[in-house]
This record gives sequence, structure tokens and C-alpha cells, in this order.
Amino acid sequence: MKEKVVFGIDVGGTTVKCGLFTTEGKLLEMWEIPTRTENGGAAILPDVARTVKDKIRERGLDAARILGLGIGVPGPVNTRGEVATAVNLHWGYKNVAGELQEALGCRVCVGNDANVAALGEMWMGGGKGASNLILLTLGTGVGGGVIVDGRIVAGAHGAGGEVGHACVNPEEPEVCNCGNHGCLEQMASATGLVRLAERYLASSEAESSLRKTKLSAKAVFDAYKVGDGAAAAIVEEFAGYLGRTMAVFACVTDPEIFVLGGGVSKAGEVLVQAVEKHYRKHAFSSCKDTPIVLAELGNEAGIYGAARMVLD
Amino acid sequence: MKEKVVFGIDVGGTTVKCGLFTTEGKLLEMWEIPTRTENGGAAILPDVARTVKDKIRERGLDAARILGLGIGVPGPVNTRGEVATAVNLHWGYKNVAGELQEALGCRVCVGNDANVAALGEMWMGGGKGASNLILLTLGTGVGGGVIVDGRIVAGAHGAGGEVGHACVNPEEPEVCNCGNHGCLEQMASATGLVRLAERYLASSEAESSLRKTKLSAKAVFDAYKVGDGAAAAIVEEFAGYLGRTMAVFACVTDPEIFVLGGGVSKAGEVLVQAVEKHYRKHAFSSCKDTPIVLAELGNEAGIYGAARMVLD
Repeated sequence: MKEKVVFGIDVGGTTVKCGLFTTEGKLLEMWEIPTRTENGGAAILPDVARTVKDKIRERGLDAARILGLGIGVPGPVNTRGEVATAVNLHWGYKNVAGELQEALGCRVCVGNDANVAALGEMWMGGGKGASNLILLTLGTGVGGGVIVDGRIVAGAHGAGGEVGHACVNPEEPEVCNCGNHGCLEQMASATGLVRLAERYLASSEAESSLRKTKLSAKAVFDAYKVGDGAAAAIVEEFAGYLGRTMAVFACVTDPEIFVLGGGVSKAGEVLVQAVEKHYRKHAFSSCKDTPIVLAELGNEAGIYGAARMVLD
Repeated sequence: MKEKVVFGIDVGGTTVKCGLFTTEGKLLEMWEIPTRTENGGAAILPDVARTVKDKIRERGLDAARILGLGIGVPGPVNTRGEVATAVNLHWGYKNVAGELQEALGCRVCVGNDANVAALGEMWMGGGKGASNLILLTLGTGVGGGVIVDGRIVAGAHGAGGEVGHACVNPEEPEVCNCGNHGCLEQMASATGLVRLAERYLASSEAESSLRKTKLSAKAVFDAYKVGDGAAAAIVEEFAGYLGRTMAVFACVTDPEIFVLGGGVSKAGEVLVQAVEKHYRKHAFSSCKDTPIVLAELGNEAGIYGAARMVLD
């Protein structure tokens, strides 16, 4: 059998996830190598090239069967596949596409990791079948990606899909990691949810099981699920910020579907329901029924999306 | 000389604007016909076909020279060039592309009028040279269009670029024309600016020349330009809503440039400066320097953009 294959690579700060896929999106094999960030991360791309070549040899893959390699990196990527800087990899300027093309001799596509994850969820995850979607990844921060007509919207400065830095409360006194005040990330990340919880508990006298536990996004949603009143108020505030902001996003690209990923999304359907209520209230009439779903690929969204870039 | 030409048509509620363009964006001729909305607007497309055929005959244009016709209509348009409904034209469902293709035998492209205007400003107006932009048209309402990679983002429900219905103040008691509360349109349209002015003047004791004049967007900006304190407070509120919301939009598609059009934009550079201040404060770091400029094509943006669709 001579079906074509693509490699999907997701470079993180500690490990590089690697996947070999069919063009239909079947994951044939997945493996990891460490990310060597020493010496300005000089070894990272040679390591990627080596592990890919090893895999090609190990599987006896003809060059003709290999459509190419897609790679997601944690930094802004321009249309030529160059990265200006990627702090977590200790990179300054890096011609990712150029280096890998030279080393591997195949087509190479490069994207920002968060955007690439959105493409992965579109291809084989929560947004399967859609070609216009917005992914919001609710983790330590809030990241995401915007897909229009099946393609990543990278933006003029690589800030397409920087959904976590939408200003949702200009009056917010605390400062976001980005230097602004009142970003969505300060309210709707795992960290942001804990911050809202601490603030609520400090300002209220309400009894709550949350007062007796270590606060985390999971603890808040667990308390919410068993009817804790304080947790309900906290989730309501969190979901209000998130749902209203998604309604604003819908006025820009009007996606077919919203996908919620990241650690906070492990709360499951109750998260979707809480957000949906606010989204539907504030969305423009023709977008009120846009589905909101959970991401399905978890940490593998990046390798799926990286591989998918090659098929475009 | 046998250069290729395209027709650009912009269907409004009272007149249909028509333009004949070279492929380089030179407007060779512009004319208008009335929009006949009686009988469910049944005559509108036949009238367009007739005036185009007349022009072809009058100028002796060979079929080979005509690349096609683009048309902007005031309603949501799907990818097949069909309109579900266009209230101002008295249309229900209408296969715009199909009817005109049959009548004219050339390529026909159909778009929503506000989106098409954004494409026009990208081609030959304030956003010339850009391929990613957002147009905000500050008129009776707030409309606009989003362009990514040189193409209109129509959206899954034709609501791409419905920037006027971004929720900017969920506490707003008054209702927007769309049925929601606190839309950008309620603050940043000409009507919205007057509303903010009335509210400010009613709640304040401040002396102001605005108390002695008929309120309008122009009156507010005229008073602002000569240093009226109340006008300054009103413009500050208006520009705050607009600049902050544009900063949120930048987190979605990260445009190369924002273009401000519509009647309110006649205020000129003072509008840009007022909005810029708030935009720069709230925009994500890499988008803080995105230029904000005035639209240049006025009411002709629609025919330019309609013609430009054909060249894609």
C-alpha cells in the first residue's frame, strides 16, 4: 500500500511531539523527543530533522509518499515560515521553513502552535467538518486560533487568534502578563478563574466548600457541579466574560462553530452550558445558534494541525 | 486598445450605482439608475442587466474584454451568490448570481454591500496596498467589513463584519435595532453619538455650545474642535467604546490597517486621533501600532469593491 503520508510536529518548551499521519487524518504513529533549548535552541530543528529521517528510514518510506512536514512553534510566524522570536525555545530569529526544507528536501509548513491547534480541531477534533471556526484554549493563559475558509488567520503581526488578550474589563486594576489591564486571559484562564474565585470569596460572607479546599479551576467547577452557591456566582462571572467576548468575536468572522479547549475545558458540558447562556444573550441575531463544543484532541491537536497545514 | 474591464454595481434602497473599471482600478465611467422596489423588487436585477447591456452596446465592448460583473446588495449573501432576504429591496430569497449570469452570460460575483465596501477601500481607498483590513462604517448605524488575505470574510451566517453589533456595554438599558443591548452601533454611529451627547448633557450642568444647537454627529465634532468641554467628554466616551472594541477585533484577525468610513468620519483626523488613543491603550502589544486611517472612496467604495470581487 502506497498511500501518501504527512508529518505533524509540535514544538513545546520541554518536548517535541511528532506524528505521522495519512492524508485522511489517521494518526499512524506518535512519538516525542526532548526540546534542547540550550545554546539558543540551536539543536531543536536539527533534532526534528534527525528524528523524521530516522522514522522515514525505519518505515522504509519512499520520498514520493511523503507530502511534507508541518510544524507548530510557540511564537509568531510570518508567511515565509520565519519566526522573529520564540522565548520558550530560547530562539531569536529563525528561518524554520528554510532550515527544515534544506535538511529534509520536502515541503515544510510552519505555523504558530495555538493557531495550528485550531486547525487540528477543525480537521479531526471538535470542529470536524467546519471550515470556519474559533478555538479558545483555556489553560494557564487563554490562547486560541481563528480559521477562515479552512486556513489559519495568522494576522499582520502574528497576532491573529490572540483571543486571550481581548480587553473585557478596562477598569481591571491588576495587570495582565501582556502589560494591559482587563484581558480575557485574566478572567477566563485557569489562573483567571482562581483569581475571580479568590476575589469573590474575599468580598463575600457566603459559606462555601471552596473556603476549605485549595483553589483551582477544577475545584471551582467541582463545587459548581454539586450546587455550591459561591461557585455558581464565580462561574457566572467567568462565563459572562467568556460568552460575551465570544459574541463579539462572532461579529468579526462569524464562525460555524466555537471550540473550547485547555485544562478548564475538562469541566465538560457544564462549561459549555454556562458559556452558552451568555453567548446567546449577546450574540448578533444570525449567530445566536452557533454551536459551542469541547475540543477533542487535547495535547495532540498541535500535531494534527501541523500535519493538516501540509494538505492545503 | 483592448484592455479588460469589469462592472461594479452597488444596489441601494433608492438608487443602483454602476461603475465600469479597468482591471487596475481606474473608474472609466459611473452612472446611476433608480432602484424599483415595487412588486417585491422584481425589476431590480432585470434593470441592472439592461443598463449593463446598454453600456456594453454604447461603448462597443467585445464580450472578450468583459471579465465579469460584481454586485453588492444590502443583505446576507451565501457562497453561491444567493440572498435569503434583503428588506430594503423588498426581496425574499433571490438567486442574484444565477439571474444575472443568465441575463448577461458573464462571470457574476455577489457580496454584502458593507463587506464589498471594505474590499473597495482595500483596492483603491484608505487601505490601498493592504490585504488584511477591517472597515468600520460609522453612519446611521455601524457597518463594516473584514478582509483576510484579500478576501471578504462573509462568515457562516453572512454576519462576518457585522462589527456594529459587538456588545460593548452589557448594562445598556436601551435596546439596539437588532434587539440586543449595548451594541457598538448604539454608541459609535452618528445616531449613537447623538444619544451619548443627549445623555451627557442631561446628566451634567456644564455649559456647552451644544445646548444651543441641533444635536448631530457633526455638531458634536465641530464643538469638540473648538475646545468645548462637554463635547470633549462626549467624544471621549464615544472614542473609548470604538477604540477598545477595535482592539478586541485586532485579537481576532490582526489586520494590517483599520479604515474608518461613513458620515461620522467626515470629522477627519480628530476622529482618528481620538480613537487611536483608546485603541493603542487596549490593543495587544504586537498590534498597538496598527494604522487607523480614514476611508477615501465615500459612497463609491461599493462599486469599487464590487468590481474588485471579479478579479479574485
